[in-house]
Formats: sequence, C-alpha cells, structure tokens
Amino acid sequence: MKIGIITIGSELLNGSRVDTNAHWIAKNVILFGGEVISKKSILDNEADIASAINYFLKTPIEMILITGGLGPTHDDITANSLYEYFNDDPIFDSSYWDKLNKIFTSKGLDVSNLNKSQAFIPKKGEIIPNKIGTARGISYNHKNVRIIAMPGIPKEMKSMMNESVFPLIQESSKISINYKILRTTGISESKLFNMLEEAIGKFVDVNIAFLPSFLGVDLRISGHNKTSFDSALKEIFACIEYYIYSQNNEPLEEVVSKMLIEKKITISTAESCTGGHIGDRLTNISGVSSSYKGSIVAYSNDQKIKLLHVDEKTLKEHGAVSEETAIAMAIGVQKKFATNIGISTTGIAGPGGGTAKKPVGLVYIGFAYNSLSKAYKFNFKHDRVSNKMISAQVALNIIRKNLEKLDK
Amino acid sequence: MKIGIITIGSELLNGSRVDTNAHWIAKNVILFGGEVISKKSILDNEADIASAINYFLKTPIEMILITGGLGPTHDDITANSLYEYFNDDPIFDSSYWDKLNKIFTSKGLDVSNLNKSQAFIPKKGEIIPNKIGTARGISYNHKNVRIIAMPGIPKEMKSMMNESVFPLIQESSKISINYKILRTTGISESKLFNMLEEAIGKFVDVNIAFLPSFLGVDLRISGHNKTSFDSALKEIFACIEYYIYSQNNEPLEEVVSKMLIEKKITISTAESCTGGHIGDRLTNISGVSSSYKGSIVAYSNDQKIKLLHVDEKTLKEHGAVSEETAIAMAIGVQKKFATNIGISTTGIAGPGGGTAKKPVGLVYIGFAYNSLSKAYKFNFKHDRVSNKMISAQVALNIIRKNLEKLDK
Repeated sequence: MKIGIITIGSELLNGSRVDTNAHWIAKNVILFGGEVISKKSILDNEADIASAINYFLKTPIEMILITGGLGPTHDDITANSLYEYFNDDPIFDSSYWDKLNKIFTSKGLDVSNLNKSQAFIPKKGEIIPNKIGTARGISYNHKNVRIIAMPGIPKEMKSMMNESVFPLIQESSKISINYKILRTTGISESKLFNMLEEAIGKFVDVNIAFLPSFLGVDLRISGHNKTSFDSALKEIFACIEYYIYSQNNEPLEEVVSKMLIEKKITISTAESCTGGHIGDRLTNISGVSSSYKGSIVAYSNDQKIKLLHVDEKTLKEHGAVSEETAIAMAIGVQKKFATNIGISTTGIAGPGGGTAKKPVGLVYIGFAYNSLSKAYKFNFKHDRVSNKMISAQVALNIIRKNLEKLDK
Repeated sequence: MKIGIITIGSELLNGSRVDTNAHWIAKNVILFGGEVISKKSILDNEADIASAINYFLKTPIEMILITGGLGPTHDDITANSLYEYFNDDPIFDSSYWDKLNKIFTSKGLDVSNLNKSQAFIPKKGEIIPNKIGTARGISYNHKNVRIIAMPGIPKEMKSMMNESVFPLIQESSKISINYKILRTTGISESKLFNMLEEAIGKFVDVNIAFLPSFLGVDLRISGHNKTSFDSALKEIFACIEYYIYSQNNEPLEEVVSKMLIEKKITISTAESCTGGHIGDRLTNISGVSSSYKGSIVAYSNDQKIKLLHVDEKTLKEHGAVSEETAIAMAIGVQKKFATNIGISTTGIAGPGGGTAKKPVGLVYIGFAYNSLSKAYKFNFKHDRVSNKMISAQVALNIIRKNLEKLDK
C-alpha cells in the first residue's frame, strides 16, 4: 500500500522540532505492508492543507496520513480544513463533550470552550478513537484514497497508529510480512555488505535494508514468502553471526545487563577516557543493580594510584594510556568492588593530549574476569565525544563477547 | 525570502534516516532572512523531482533548496533530472575531471568512470563550488525562483550553505537580522511564556521563539530593528535572568566546566542514581581535567560506606535515598578526591524500588563546597532514563548556581 505523509506545524519548518513523527510512521508501516513514497511538512493553514491533499491525490497513493493540528487552540485548524475540503457539515457529539468535561473535572482542570471543537464528528467521514488523549482522529474515503488525520503528540499518534491504522494497512495490503531486525556492532556497513552480497543476490524476494548509525549497523530483513525469509535469515546468520548482538531491537547495554543478571556475574568499571559513560549506559537498564556494583572514574594518575591501586612504576614506565595500566585498572576496580568482572578504559579522547607515539584516539580497554586479565588496543579517529561513545560501545561489546565464551 | 526544501532519497522514506538536513536548513536560514514554508521528501526518480519542483513553482516561493542525489552512483539522478527539467545540455568540464583524478590518485583510490558525471557543468545554470567534497552544487534561475541542488552528505551541504547559499539569501532579503539564543533550564515553557508575555506584547517587531526540549527551553530572539532588539533583550534578561545558563548556544556542561576552570575550582562526583551520567557530561568538555578529578559510582549501601565513608548509622536511620546520605556522599567524595566541590546524587530512578514514602522519581542532590554542605530534594515524574537525565541536568545547574554565588 502506497502512503503519503503530511505533517502540519510551523515548529517543523522553523527548526524548532525535528519531524520524528514522519520518521516513525515511515519506519513502522513497512511491517504491515505499507510504503511511504513521499512526505510533506506544511504550515498550519487551510490553503496549504488543501493543496497538499490535492498534490497527493494526483500521485498513485492509497492512503494519506496527516499529523498535527487537532488540538483545541486557534492554531489547530486540521479538522476544519478537512470539513471544508470534503464539504462536510460535522455534528456536535454531546456524549463525547460530557466525557471531555468529566475527564477535565477529574483532573481538577477547567474545561475550555475551545475544547468544544474536539467534540465534533464528521458526517461524511469517521472518527478514530484516541485511547490516551482528548483529540480524536478523523478519517475520510475519497476517490479510493483513505485520508486519516491524527494528533501531532507522538504518544497519541503512535497509539492511534497501533490501534486503528496499522490494522487498516495490513488488511488492505492483504499480505503478512515476515520481519526481523538484527543489530550489529564492530563492523562497517560496506564490510557487512560484502559479507552478505551473495545472500542478497540469492534471496531476491527478501528485502535486506542496511540502517547504519555511528555505533553499529542494523539490518532490517523482511519478506512475504516465509520459506525464503527463513532461509535468508539462516544464511545471514551463518555469514555475520559474530557481529550480531540483538535480534530483538535492544540496545547493547540491555543485552549485556541481561547476560550479567542471568549468569549472576557481578561487574564494576574503572573509567578514565570514557568519564562515566559505560556506567551511565549500564544503569539505564532496570534491575542491573544485582550485577553492576559501581565505578571509579579516575581522571588523574594520582587517583589511578590511590583509588585503583595502579602501581606507580607501571604508570611511569608505560604511561597512563597503555596496555599495562588498562589491565591494572581493571584488576584494581575488580578488587575494590569485589566483582567477578572489572572493565577499564584509558585513552586520549582529544582534541588535545596526543603525541606521535600516542595519538588522539588511542584507547586501551582492560578486562579482568576472576584471575584472567587482558587488554585490547584501538585507534579511533573521531572527535572527543565520539571517541568516548565508541570506546564505551566497544567496552560493552568486549564484555558481551567474553560472557558468550563462558558458555562454550 | 520564502524557501521550499526538497530532500531526495529512499532512506528518508523507509525509516532508515531522520531528515536532519531539512531541519538544519530550516533552523539556519532564519538568521539570514529566509523562511521555510514547506518541505518535501521524495524518492530518487526523475518524475518525482520534476513534480516536486512544479508543485513549489505554483507556491509563492523564491528559492528551492534540494539536497541529495549528486553522488556518482546510478541512484544519483538529481543532476540529470535538473538538466532534463530545464532542457539543458551540460558541458563536460575536463579541467574539473583532471582535478578529480588528482584527488583520487592522491588518496590512493581508483577514480571510477561513474565519477565522470560529477564533472559536467550546466549550460543554462551555474556550478556551486564544494570545498570539502567532489560533488559540486547546481543552480538554476527559473521564473524568478532560484533552484539550488546540493549534496546530501550533511558536512558538504552545510559547507555549501555557509559558503554560497546563506550569502545569496541574505543579499536577496536585503535585511540584517539581530539574533540571540538564550538557553534556560529549570523552568517550563508555559511559565517562561507567562513571565515574558508582557515583553512579547511590547516588542512587536522582535520575534521570540520558544524551543523546548526535555532538559530546558531555548529562546530564539531575532529582529531587524537593532534598537527594539536590544531593548527586548534587556527586558527579557530582567525577567528571566535566573534561568539563563548560556547566551552562546553552549551545553550546560560546557558552561559549568568553563566556570570551574576559570575559577580554578576542583570537583568530584559521587553518583548513585545517575550512574555516571554527570561525569560523562563533564568529560565531554576538552580541558576539564584541570578541574574534574573523578567520580565514584556507588550503587550499593556497602560501597557507599566503604568508598564514600557514609556512616552506617546514617544509612540505617535515614535510608540511602535521603538528605543525610546525599550530604554524606558529597562530603565523602570531596574528601576522597581532595577537591573543592563534591556533588552527589541518590534517588529512585524507577521503574521498581518506589514506596509510598519514597516514590519513584525521588532524588536528593548533595553539594559540598569547602566546609559548607547542603542537599536539594526533587520529585521527578518520568521514566528511568529520563529521571537520570533530568537529575544530572539539575546537578550541573546546582553547581552553576553555587559558582555564581561565589562572585557575589
């Protein structure tokens, strides 16, 4: 089903807000057989709404999704624009108005006469329920095109899409889509592509989309034919399993936290160049406190000696950014917090502090597990914040790969 | 000057990428007298490009900015679509082709015949230089509308906008804009609006835009009339100075770091519920190591006692999430790292762990400066990650407000 999106609001055109609604819709309709072929952002005025609908009606589109402008204020003109466009004469829905009054009163709020606009229903169209807000959606059928207006508040729009619109798309598409997201890290898009080129050529009825971001590449695999889809998935796994950290669209810190909790393994972190970012990511996961015991961020040599018991000689002979210091930090924090695992980062995030021998982006990650310890060396080539981010990502991935080995 | 934006690429319509180019352009043209009145994202095919241009030519627009599709691959059809649209017969630019060959050879890369497409110049239009990439821009004048195509790579697009397009917009707009961004935190958009309502009504020729985000509200103040602009700015300052942390579009951690470095004040953090997020933000700022000495993330009571020397009695009598523990943690870390300031967070980030007396979102922030210490209490009402984020923001703001007081 071919879909056009119209997002309405001056905040989308003056740089106040990124249009995340259109992005979310585009990403998710695919799962139900939908395909966005064009999107438009326009100002909130009647003429622009009408001309945007006219534009889409001239294209081979079966559905127009509109977001924004269904609120109660004078700026919210989407409903009236649609009534006007379809030459409709909406009816006042007194039972919904009573319901609105009750909702506002129960919250101790004054119901404004402005809210009355939300209690109308179209004669020629339909109302779409809003389970979590007061602005209901509006739907019209016109020349075999379904036109649906939804609120611009992301939570309400998403709820309406989930409850009412996705089922419609799926029904019209009359197809069921098999769908999987594989999240990878530690490999570039082009290398992944090379490894999967044969599979991509072989399974022509399976769509393999590469969704790269700074910390990794997600693969979105989809197809109508279940047999092809399953075979493709199996072959993809065989090619790139090493790099896949999640099949359930989870962030890496969640995968790592779940592994730690499940295996009852405790961990602590000694962060220098990452400044607390690893601890921050791990503690985003609820329930991690049974495994994650804490962190020492030791930014100076003094603190590395005093708090992490790194040998002064090690620092003098090898420097703070070295394999030896990374290992000593990992062991130091592991002992300090009495955890199974200690993980450390030490590096030169930049932009200053680099030398010919130890350039900006040089990072060592130390890993200690029980009586084993080792260090990993990296040369990143980004700016300060990105070097910190990629260091934390790599550290989390090192934990994951080492936890995987424990099973073997 | 009224502007329309066309962004080209399937990645913008299948959910692979958020359209940050259109957002950046919309936000920045305002400074040069431009105003985006509509934007469209379309697939990379000739017919869609032509119909998008046709659509805009029917609106009261003076400039169309196009991004994407100027690369060397078969998907990159923007240039050809424009030649076709304007019935142009481009000329092969052999000197640019020589230059391309030299660039590729110097990088040890093979120059592909595909790159030849980048060496053509329009007969009826103009070339726009690209200072940092190989894809030059293309510009046409048509029915008093300037149509400019730029590469989709954000860095190259921005460089071209800065070098060539902003000057054009400013020249056509024939106005100079006075412009300031004031960043605030700790106050809601609606409260800020109430405080500024009078000023907004008074300075009708000054535009005051509210740009809210989760951690604060930015105010974008702009106006052509320098006298009004200056008076408005003065009055806005008088109303809301307390909440403004930056006039230079800096993040809060940069403002705080600069204050610390300038005042030669050292700091350490004791993070519980924020899990390392404050340290992470502070260490995003280059040069902070002269002031920021490190952090102890103590997730358990044991570690609060052992590493931060919080009295066991304090924890037993008042609990880990209490004013007393927050203060003890701040003093503990201040002593441990021998810094002027110690700052601590302890709270219930959620979703679990709340009680009737100590609900999810209860957070104490402890602050110790030399021999002074105090705690601040908050009741946040967000999800786990957002509670962590807002706690770190508030902690940084507490440091800032206390550093400000030192001057007085």
